[in-house]
Amino acid sequence: MSKYVFGVDLGGTTVKMGLFNPEGEVLEKWEIPTRKEDSGKLILPDIAASIKEKMNAKGFAKEEVIGVGIGVPGPVDSEGVIYKAANLGWGVFSIKEEMTALLDGIAVEAGNDANVAALGEMWKGGGQGHDNIVAVTLGTGVGGGIIVNGKILTGATGAGGEIGHIHLDDTEPEVCGCGKCGCLEQYASATGIARLARRRLAMDDKESSLRGKDINAKVVFDAVKEKDEVAMEIARQFGEYLGRGLAAVACVVNPEVFVIGGGVSKAGPVLMDYIKAPYEAKVFHGCANAEFALATLGNDAGIYGAAKLVLG
Amino acid sequence: MSKYVFGVDLGGTTVKMGLFNPEGEVLEKWEIPTRKEDSGKLILPDIAASIKEKMNAKGFAKEEVIGVGIGVPGPVDSEGVIYKAANLGWGVFSIKEEMTALLDGIAVEAGNDANVAALGEMWKGGGQGHDNIVAVTLGTGVGGGIIVNGKILTGATGAGGEIGHIHLDDTEPEVCGCGKCGCLEQYASATGIARLARRRLAMDDKESSLRGKDINAKVVFDAVKEKDEVAMEIARQFGEYLGRGLAAVACVVNPEVFVIGGGVSKAGPVLMDYIKAPYEAKVFHGCANAEFALATLGNDAGIYGAAKLVLG
Repeated sequence: MSKYVFGVDLGGTTVKMGLFNPEGEVLEKWEIPTRKEDSGKLILPDIAASIKEKMNAKGFAKEEVIGVGIGVPGPVDSEGVIYKAANLGWGVFSIKEEMTALLDGIAVEAGNDANVAALGEMWKGGGQGHDNIVAVTLGTGVGGGIIVNGKILTGATGAGGEIGHIHLDDTEPEVCGCGKCGCLEQYASATGIARLARRRLAMDDKESSLRGKDINAKVVFDAVKEKDEVAMEIARQFGEYLGRGLAAVACVVNPEVFVIGGGVSKAGPVLMDYIKAPYEAKVFHGCANAEFALATLGNDAGIYGAAKLVLG
Repeated sequence: MSKYVFGVDLGGTTVKMGLFNPEGEVLEKWEIPTRKEDSGKLILPDIAASIKEKMNAKGFAKEEVIGVGIGVPGPVDSEGVIYKAANLGWGVFSIKEEMTALLDGIAVEAGNDANVAALGEMWKGGGQGHDNIVAVTLGTGVGGGIIVNGKILTGATGAGGEIGHIHLDDTEPEVCGCGKCGCLEQYASATGIARLARRRLAMDDKESSLRGKDINAKVVFDAVKEKDEVAMEIARQFGEYLGRGLAAVACVVNPEVFVIGGGVSKAGPVLMDYIKAPYEAKVFHGCANAEFALATLGNDAGIYGAAKLVLG
């Protein structure tokens, strides 16, 4: 009898779903919309219905399904309980229990989406071959997912890996999304890079191809690749903050590899040139050999990790 | 048949040893000298001989001994392999294998001493009742031990929990033991506090009971308890660095409790007054509720943790 696993990545607008074999090959991928009305009451039943429908269409017996893993945008503890997902209208409840009931007893595991994506990158992505990794997502914010001995480090309240909120700069006047000032996220996220760029451009009149453009992280790193000096200064600032933040992370969990993903990582290997030197300058010598790799699964990291969550 | 565990804490001058029951009650404690001659070749045979002698004296059968745990002053990986202990003259080898052979097949587990002590504090000390803790040892240096889901976080190269080397200050001119500048250890260790004190006293002539004294961490915190203003300024600086360092740690591993030990912790609860406010000012809100507790096992943390290492 063949065996199958479902991986579910629950986002604010769509739910990504994948059917896997236990070796981690994706057999099918599909999406359904995330219906957020009524405090998100429809979301889990919608997901369960879609999984059952797929099982019917494929003619799977219940016994052929090893389980369903699900990554959600909020803090989830190691028992599969979510502590509010503002984005979905959710309060505190056990995703694991509710989903298991909806699926007539099929095994369910749940985790925070950033952590689950980290697990996916460890399994089949940029961290493949390692079981101690830190995944760093440079998107609108800076997310982190920490994998220790092949397992997600959840933390006491599901806030393990919230590395975007490591405090780095006392001189920062602007307030971070978290309510404090000077967080890593304010410099190393896509929005952070754009902020650094606007500040640098306002500082003087130095010639730069960035002037007059709509500034975003992509535009900055495109200019870096063209050796624009102002863009390179901005990239150095970005790298100084990120390298320093990751050096602190390394002194805590001593990973084998940092896997860098998120929209900013599309800039490619040039990123590493700016992160590694400041990292090595600040990190404890015992952690200096950590590798830096780019994430490779993109938006699929979540479904891979969710499947892996079930496989253990 | 009763069951027993041995816990061994290998230090640079003495080996502390304890006989425990599986519930964690210490039945007997003793010490032997650490003989470092001949590149430390005698150390493990000496320990094995002492354990066998104790087994004979007590009339224990081999089957009654669950195992022997050992904490050593150097990086140890999760397989029980040590990567150099300069202090003992040791190179790279499997403590676990060598010790198991010396003990005729009795199960052996090995770990880094700071990590093992953290495990002891979790089991029977200041972190009792929790299984996600960060133990912080404020001694000559600043050591750390991180326990996640009841297990030591070893890291890729045994450098997990090296929180004393988180970089905090770009303006630091003096060099840390690790070769870099501005590490947490340079401000929050006993020697760090004395440095902060000497610097503060040299700054101006403000009256203080510290003037003319041999400055060390105890003298500073004694003066803090007498409300000496200069001493309180020094304590605020210490707390600012440590609170900020621990805030970074929390954003990574999100512990339930920080357990503060080492010589400096003898100052007692007054320490917390100086650490907590800067911690809360800088930490991610999801980690703000972490507790702060004092270590309670003192020099016995190592033997407790070593015994726990075997019990799993």
